[in-house]
Amino acid sequence: MGLETMERTVYLNGKFLPESQANISIFDRGFLFADAVYEVTSVLQSKLIDNLGHFHRLERSCRELNLTLPLSYQELTDIQHTLIEKNQLHEGGIYLQLTRGDEGDRDFTYHDGVPPTIVLFTQERNLVNSPKAKKGIKVISYADMRWRRRDIKTTNLLPACMAKHAAHAAGADDVWLIENGYVTEGGSNNAYIVTQDDKIVTRPLSNDILHGITRASLMKLAQEFDIEIEERHFTIDEAYAAKEAFISSATTFVWPVVAIDDKPIGDGQPGLIALKLREIYINAALAAAE
Amino acid sequence: MGLETMERTVYLNGKFLPESQANISIFDRGFLFADAVYEVTSVLQSKLIDNLGHFHRLERSCRELNLTLPLSYQELTDIQHTLIEKNQLHEGGIYLQLTRGDEGDRDFTYHDGVPPTIVLFTQERNLVNSPKAKKGIKVISYADMRWRRRDIKTTNLLPACMAKHAAHAAGADDVWLIENGYVTEGGSNNAYIVTQDDKIVTRPLSNDILHGITRASLMKLAQEFDIEIEERHFTIDEAYAAKEAFISSATTFVWPVVAIDDKPIGDGQPGLIALKLREIYINAALAAAE
Repeated sequence: MGLETMERTVYLNGKFLPESQANISIFDRGFLFADAVYEVTSVLQSKLIDNLGHFHRLERSCRELNLTLPLSYQELTDIQHTLIEKNQLHEGGIYLQLTRGDEGDRDFTYHDGVPPTIVLFTQERNLVNSPKAKKGIKVISYADMRWRRRDIKTTNLLPACMAKHAAHAAGADDVWLIENGYVTEGGSNNAYIVTQDDKIVTRPLSNDILHGITRASLMKLAQEFDIEIEERHFTIDEAYAAKEAFISSATTFVWPVVAIDDKPIGDGQPGLIALKLREIYINAALAAAE
Repeated sequence: MGLETMERTVYLNGKFLPESQANISIFDRGFLFADAVYEVTSVLQSKLIDNLGHFHRLERSCRELNLTLPLSYQELTDIQHTLIEKNQLHEGGIYLQLTRGDEGDRDFTYHDGVPPTIVLFTQERNLVNSPKAKKGIKVISYADMRWRRRDIKTTNLLPACMAKHAAHAAGADDVWLIENGYVTEGGSNNAYIVTQDDKIVTRPLSNDILHGITRASLMKLAQEFDIEIEERHFTIDEAYAAKEAFISSATTFVWPVVAIDDKPIGDGQPGLIALKLREIYINAALAAAE
């Protein structure tokens, strides 16, 4: 009984259910083919952070894959707010996954008119006072083995799981992925360095990296606060020699990177520009939270 | 009632269940991360074709991904034979999927000691007298956008779904994937051409392609029957100019390719060497079936 009352309420295809009852068919295309997309929206003070940006990216992922998005933005936020309330979520995130649905059998070919599967669930997490935000994280460089459309946020995430596992096995927190000598991004986040003359450098948008919603917000805020961000490729050697390094994502906001491949970045302490950007982002995100 | 009795019996984590009751948690890593591998074994005359080869590849996939395979070969074949019997399967296939299991929440990092999820189900299909085997198939060339470890048979299959969808939209049956100017393989099969001097050419094994079980059997049989197979890269232009083209996989055995990008291959009819190889394979497979 005690355990039962502690169960999260999750959303699955129109219903709010105890998590232990949220099951999908083994024939769901999300299970058989990773024929699915997802988004994670952070929650601070029980409010949704940058949620419209995530919705727009979800719409784009669906368009690119010919997936049907069965919810309007209003319907989505209603579900999200209900989940926040039912689970008394103060700080954390809401995960959303949309699959091409269940065709009752396995066939690579998909068919129109099959209702998509949509699932949302909450996760309680310490975001603002995360110890990693204060202490910074260590990353290792790792070959980027992912497919060519990293701009689409799909559940084909085994390469990311393998990369993060390798990082943990090496005593680090995450990876920075390398392709053709250049850093693409982190294991599940965008990657930035700060040059010795205080210029932020991050890889330009393309099919090679995820178009981070937090990244987009940081770009805008940097402009407002006269912080220069240059979008260009950078190598791992340039990162080793940087004054600072950091990552951004919906669930980390901004986390300083204090070591890459066991080499301390700058003085090995969280960088001032990273911490400043984090503060600016959290304030702006809270002010705009829904 | 009628519908209920027509349900397949499937296997899920130690139980034989009606397919409508075969559900997995939304937290299964197979669903959230495509953290899963699979195999398909063909069934002819209610017997398993090349099954040991599939088991060995499954063991290898598990090793590469640090996944636990919870079944011995004997236990697996017992389950497969039970499914064949319960579903009165004469001809078709048995699909097996193994995931890293359900950790009750979503976290890229996986933890040891979580029991894997294992599911098997049957599919009835016309294999020996498939119309496509007789008429041949049409393929289109398509950019190979998959990740770098195609030798591991994972469920990160969205790229294959997209490619096959593009083929169907173009009025073709499948794709031949192209990378750096060379054909890697088909949408879910290995690719071969026959040169004007009757030499079979197929791409050598590497991380770039799946190590086909049917391919391995064909290599052996070709040697026995003095049919020359050369393992080397070939371009799509070389394929256009080939005398024959064909594919192999567990569920197609050998299918002739009669057109690539709307260009007829040879005289546009199924090739003699392809049809001969198909016949040799089916006879040998049946003789060794379990």
